[in-house]
Amino acid sequence: MLSRDIDTVLRRALAEDTGCGDITTSSLIPEGHTSRAVLLAKEDFVLAGLPFAERLFRLADSGIRFTSLKKEGRRVRKGNVIARISGGTAGLLAAERTALNLLQRMSGIATLTDRYVKAVTGLGVKITDTRKTAPGLRFFDKYAVRAGGGDNHRFGLFDGVLIKDNHIAAAGGTARAVKLARSRVPHLLKIEVEVKNLTEVKEALSAGADVIMLDNMPVEKIKKAVAVIRSSDPGIVIEASGGINPGNVRSIAEAGVDIISVGALTHSAPAADISMKFD
Amino acid sequence: MLSRDIDTVLRRALAEDTGCGDITTSSLIPEGHTSRAVLLAKEDFVLAGLPFAERLFRLADSGIRFTSLKKEGRRVRKGNVIARISGGTAGLLAAERTALNLLQRMSGIATLTDRYVKAVTGLGVKITDTRKTAPGLRFFDKYAVRAGGGDNHRFGLFDGVLIKDNHIAAAGGTARAVKLARSRVPHLLKIEVEVKNLTEVKEALSAGADVIMLDNMPVEKIKKAVAVIRSSDPGIVIEASGGINPGNVRSIAEAGVDIISVGALTHSAPAADISMKFD
Amino acid sequence: MLSRDIDTVLRRALAEDTGCGDITTSSLIPEGHTSRAVLLAKEDFVLAGLPFAERLFRLADSGIRFTSLKKEGRRVRKGNVIARISGGTAGLLAAERTALNLLQRMSGIATLTDRYVKAVTGLGVKITDTRKTAPGLRFFDKYAVRAGGGDNHRFGLFDGVLIKDNHIAAAGGTARAVKLARSRVPHLLKIEVEVKNLTEVKEALSAGADVIMLDNMPVEKIKKAVAVIRSSDPGIVIEASGGINPGNVRSIAEAGVDIISVGALTHSAPAADISMKFD
Amino acid sequence: MLSRDIDTVLRRALAEDTGCGDITTSSLIPEGHTSRAVLLAKEDFVLAGLPFAERLFRLADSGIRFTSLKKEGRRVRKGNVIARISGGTAGLLAAERTALNLLQRMSGIATLTDRYVKAVTGLGVKITDTRKTAPGLRFFDKYAVRAGGGDNHRFGLFDGVLIKDNHIAAAGGTARAVKLARSRVPHLLKIEVEVKNLTEVKEALSAGADVIMLDNMPVEKIKKAVAVIRSSDPGIVIEASGGINPGNVRSIAEAGVDIISVGALTHSAPAADISMKFD
Amino acid sequence: MLSRDIDTVLRRALAEDTGCGDITTSSLIPEGHTSRAVLLAKEDFVLAGLPFAERLFRLADSGIRFTSLKKEGRRVRKGNVIARISGGTAGLLAAERTALNLLQRMSGIATLTDRYVKAVTGLGVKITDTRKTAPGLRFFDKYAVRAGGGDNHRFGLFDGVLIKDNHIAAAGGTARAVKLARSRVPHLLKIEVEVKNLTEVKEALSAGADVIMLDNMPVEKIKKAVAVIRSSDPGIVIEASGGINPGNVRSIAEAGVDIISVGALTHSAPAADISMKFD
Amino acid sequence: MLSRDIDTVLRRALAEDTGCGDITTSSLIPEGHTSRAVLLAKEDFVLAGLPFAERLFRLADSGIRFTSLKKEGRRVRKGNVIARISGGTAGLLAAERTALNLLQRMSGIATLTDRYVKAVTGLGVKITDTRKTAPGLRFFDKYAVRAGGGDNHRFGLFDGVLIKDNHIAAAGGTARAVKLARSRVPHLLKIEVEVKNLTEVKEALSAGADVIMLDNMPVEKIKKAVAVIRSSDPGIVIEASGGINPGNVRSIAEAGVDIISVGALTHSAPAADISMKFD
Repeated sequence: MLSRDIDTVLRRALAEDTGCGDITTSSLIPEGHTSRAVLLAKEDFVLAGLPFAERLFRLADSGIRFTSLKKEGRRVRKGNVIARISGGTAGLLAAERTALNLLQRMSGIATLTDRYVKAVTGLGVKITDTRKTAPGLRFFDKYAVRAGGGDNHRFGLFDGVLIKDNHIAAAGGTARAVKLARSRVPHLLKIEVEVKNLTEVKEALSAGADVIMLDNMPVEKIKKAVAVIRSSDPGIVIEASGGINPGNVRSIAEAGVDIISVGALTHSAPAADISMKFD
Repeated sequence: MLSRDIDTVLRRALAEDTGCGDITTSSLIPEGHTSRAVLLAKEDFVLAGLPFAERLFRLADSGIRFTSLKKEGRRVRKGNVIARISGGTAGLLAAERTALNLLQRMSGIATLTDRYVKAVTGLGVKITDTRKTAPGLRFFDKYAVRAGGGDNHRFGLFDGVLIKDNHIAAAGGTARAVKLARSRVPHLLKIEVEVKNLTEVKEALSAGADVIMLDNMPVEKIKKAVAVIRSSDPGIVIEASGGINPGNVRSIAEAGVDIISVGALTHSAPAADISMKFD
Repeated sequence: MLSRDIDTVLRRALAEDTGCGDITTSSLIPEGHTSRAVLLAKEDFVLAGLPFAERLFRLADSGIRFTSLKKEGRRVRKGNVIARISGGTAGLLAAERTALNLLQRMSGIATLTDRYVKAVTGLGVKITDTRKTAPGLRFFDKYAVRAGGGDNHRFGLFDGVLIKDNHIAAAGGTARAVKLARSRVPHLLKIEVEVKNLTEVKEALSAGADVIMLDNMPVEKIKKAVAVIRSSDPGIVIEASGGINPGNVRSIAEAGVDIISVGALTHSAPAADISMKFD
Repeated sequence: MLSRDIDTVLRRALAEDTGCGDITTSSLIPEGHTSRAVLLAKEDFVLAGLPFAERLFRLADSGIRFTSLKKEGRRVRKGNVIARISGGTAGLLAAERTALNLLQRMSGIATLTDRYVKAVTGLGVKITDTRKTAPGLRFFDKYAVRAGGGDNHRFGLFDGVLIKDNHIAAAGGTARAVKLARSRVPHLLKIEVEVKNLTEVKEALSAGADVIMLDNMPVEKIKKAVAVIRSSDPGIVIEASGGINPGNVRSIAEAGVDIISVGALTHSAPAADISMKFD
Repeated sequence: MLSRDIDTVLRRALAEDTGCGDITTSSLIPEGHTSRAVLLAKEDFVLAGLPFAERLFRLADSGIRFTSLKKEGRRVRKGNVIARISGGTAGLLAAERTALNLLQRMSGIATLTDRYVKAVTGLGVKITDTRKTAPGLRFFDKYAVRAGGGDNHRFGLFDGVLIKDNHIAAAGGTARAVKLARSRVPHLLKIEVEVKNLTEVKEALSAGADVIMLDNMPVEKIKKAVAVIRSSDPGIVIEASGGINPGNVRSIAEAGVDIISVGALTHSAPAADISMKFD
Repeated sequence: MLSRDIDTVLRRALAEDTGCGDITTSSLIPEGHTSRAVLLAKEDFVLAGLPFAERLFRLADSGIRFTSLKKEGRRVRKGNVIARISGGTAGLLAAERTALNLLQRMSGIATLTDRYVKAVTGLGVKITDTRKTAPGLRFFDKYAVRAGGGDNHRFGLFDGVLIKDNHIAAAGGTARAVKLARSRVPHLLKIEVEVKNLTEVKEALSAGADVIMLDNMPVEKIKKAVAVIRSSDPGIVIEASGGINPGNVRSIAEAGVDIISVGALTHSAPAADISMKFD
């Protein structure tokens, strides 16, 4: 997104909190009052979202100074100061909660992603997100996955073809579905087919899919599917999805897939604990 | 919010996923093709957000029929059908992911809230949310807390006065801060003061706070603070916040507070597992 | 509101006047032509809205210099120069009418408010506005009331509970209405009950209202109501509303109420007379 | 404006009042509760804005029924029922204040306009508004002037050429200003020149103005100016503006002008007194 | 339009191209990478739109430097460098296509306009556009016509009265239509009547039209119509429209009309060929 | 796009024309007046955009009835009635120009596309558009290309990777650029490399490009490039772009490419001639 479109989302988030005004601050903080504060890590996590937190403070008050002390995607330790902020107290307080909400959510996602990525170290397998993001926050959720060392799957319904059972039923079979998609879809998009068993794997293979997604298969079945696919066409990309958790992700990776997509990265990551302290 | 303002948020979420078009569907699903589907619970949870899921489907295609089989705030069992949906296949697929994303998030929040509320059964204590919501989704997050049996704290910075240490410092003491707020703030708003220890409790009491928030205190300290406050003015509302978890929430409630506010309800609830299945 | 949200309202007002372009100016004023002008008081009034007038000029042309010579909330005399403005002539003319329209409206409101506030000098009674503001301009109307020395009532339907007869009827009585509100509404909001006679005053008292609004009562009745309320609970806030005018406001204040709310402040204040003169 | 653009303004006004929700109603009015109400005239006035009031109720709840009993532009008497409204109580209460605020403002403008129009009965002179409208409400203010029997002056800076002294100075004289405008402005727009004395009247005449505005002239001077203009070119339209009030408007009309424009119609009309009563 | 409203249109155009991000650039161009580029004319044309192209680059990245080497409305030769641009490579690439699309369209319109204007040199006839512009781009299309030496007709339905046959039928005759318009329309707007033959010309004349548009008439008929109109009232403006092309425009101009309006200027001008080259 | 997002664009286009109101119609057409009209082809063309024209009429007045007599993508003959429309005259006139402007533009694009598509009949080559569309109208422009029998290239910068010389320079060579893109870009996107000569063709081949675009090459060079590519990897998609015209498109197609992209389809198609006639 252009930075101006990001601003639009950030300003809506600020407006949601501020509404017709921060009445506590406007009645208690003298005009022109300034403060210094820090963003403080209250537990260990992987940082994501700091540039957006900075932007939120500056949207609240363009005079606020914000110095980042930690880098996106790096591990932060409990007690670390992440950033120093100074400027008008009213602006600091107007942006505080929204900035922390975004930073905590994004760092939570990055931290969970990092856990999956670490789990498959050395296997050359990509951990990707899905479209299971918070409504309206997909750009930020997917950014956080990248900060955590993961990769992005398609952004939405528009930048990738993923053929599922109901598409196949409506089109009249896997072969016809892939053929139709190939003839109608812009030529820069690959065609992925979701399969549930070996029969479907074979159908997808003979239909000419570019990518095959093994949906909710146990490890043993994945191994078989990988063998069938690799022996048929070594150029096909293989994705595993569904039922992945930190406990089984490495064994699935070892089964030979190229990509493992994990919905939990963006729908169930607990927030990282971060607070703002005034000096 | 007015339903039309809710629509604006829902349409933005749909647009985020749909972008310039669902290319898989537009190339594979014949025009006029219709389908039937169900929303299916894949685990036990407390339901929240179904009316918004319905609205998302109807925003995608106003001809879609949606029949709710379960009620907001009620417990749903694994395998239950939550709703039946029928209509144009393209519309069903355009709204599917966004509707599930919202429903899973809101049901996750309701389920976690329900857990805290159940934990304090019989004690007359309210479990409330905080302002720690996903940016842009506060209305939905707070709705889900109510569906889970919880109560809402203030919506934002505009509909309640909450005086913290930095406000007190800038105003020149607790007494002066409360007095200033009382004179400047609309008369329908109560004044809450956040305190960290017994000295501050006493300052808040003599300043005339309407509500006192005990921030991050251990249970024993909470008990002492409650005793001091109740003996001074039985009409004051007492809130506990910070460091609350399912394990200690009942003992904190038993310490005599009126309200327990829990940030995790909205920032760290894992999503409920729900899917859409075509018949 | 955040200054960026205020900008949105101001820009819409400018766009309403400018439309597809100021054709007189674009055909007659040479590009790069600059001018100096003053904002001039053409009668006595209390000033309000000057920062927004400045902002309007700078939204039309960010290079315009604007020097305020008078302060918000202060009385301005006929003939006084309120501000000096210089910069591109096209920008000055594009913002002139919108800036004056806003400044004249806001100063008119401040001036009328000041008249009521002066009338109750020394009695410790607050003069407040109501929700009877121009559609879309509530923020500015309420700001002008404060500039005139008045106080704000609740901003809208969301930041205060005001129970009227139809709420009571639907809820099944005053006692039940107050109890329901207390249990369902965020704990930082007070509960106000509107009453029309002494019977209702007593019902509101026993129901436990935090604030009682005496609606459209003559002075004598107000006195009786105040006596009943004060003898029952000295902590209850008493508001008088309806039928207030500059002639009776002091006697109503002397009847012992805490707050007098006046719709005319924002729905019937005549505009202050201000013009822009080019040097 | 298209009705959909009007809706945008109306919805913003509703949102301003409703914010994150009508908490009184949502906590006290049972879901599905319906009511009947009337809009009641509490004084005599000329009605304007009823279709927009109806629209506001229907934007709040599309199921509300609204029956208009009085017509736009007609005189309404104290005690008259203007409209009957029925439907969901929550929707009625959500729209009540905004609908009344708009209806009271617009009827106030229509009533004041009617007073000026009546004052010049029989003289064939048009009473028009100016651009001195409430920011953001120009469409509604100008509609109300028409409802009161007045006419509209140009809507904004884009649909009419009005050359003032500073345009003349920048262009290098009246003759050159009119000539420049004639050559550069779309050919469907007339060219009006504002003059302050007889010398300027003559300059405007020889420059070839289509319309001459006599600014802030006393009646005697207006008579002389009219005589000069009529003897020179009987086709020129003459407008008087500035310093007009109900006391002098007829004598100014009798001085022979075609158009009298009055800023007070839209910047200083007191609101008409209208209320909503539940049956 | 205000520059801020222009920005809104330009930002929407950028967002249309950029969507959720320029994935090629974000994966290949190192952060902080800068470049120099030129805008290069690949054929001869009349330049229009360069300030908007500049603005697009700066909306994509406010740090981009843009130096215009050619002036609006001037003829540019194949091989000329129109502007030099330098700054962040990502921003240059994000704005490149949108800036070229706008610049090529506007220069195409200016070039075609210039051809018509040149064709009527010396005859004192204005070439104007119509309302046949690309939806959403009217401001830019009409700006380009002016850059090409043409004039603008009315901007839309709001800033000029143009009475066509169906208006006349509904109003009950030409005389009544003009009279009604005169009485109801703001006095700064002229009244134009569209006619198809000499009978209608005479009706428009006696009805008192300010401007007469000869619609789709052959040159001989235009000559006759001009003679009839000029002998009746020399002050009336005469416009020819319909069926105009570069081959017949001069003979139509020589027939004595004041204005020739040409829809093709904005609906069928081929784009000028311009590219951006990196140094 | 969702139909609601399309509506947003259409409503902006209507608002651009309507502004503060259609003054001719509002002063001449009696309220409630209805009419019947037809959309009439005034030359032969391929139809595109009729559903959007219908939508525009219904956005102007939801009561308008619109009966399409011709189908999208079909050839229409001069004199054919394309659609019958009836309903409120004011609404018909409010939408007329905008609907025609869109329909004429889109049909113009479809007609030009059809010409290129017909020229390559039987060769199995796709004619595609580019990103050279009118700012803000890309969705409509690309829809019209499909209606004309063409195919769409990527929609914007977000749904396809197209590596040009400056990307290669910044990345440090073709091989490294393709590798970087492959590792960073979502796995559903193919990687296209633009080449200018045979050396670059070979670099792209060994780098592993999925698609190779031959930019501005003469036919003979294209033949050689195709031979090199096909002999190296028959699965690679080959696109020709630049300098294509109706005269050379068939010989380029015969040179063996898969795709020919033509900017002129959307930046230089003359409008189809269509008018609305009232019965």
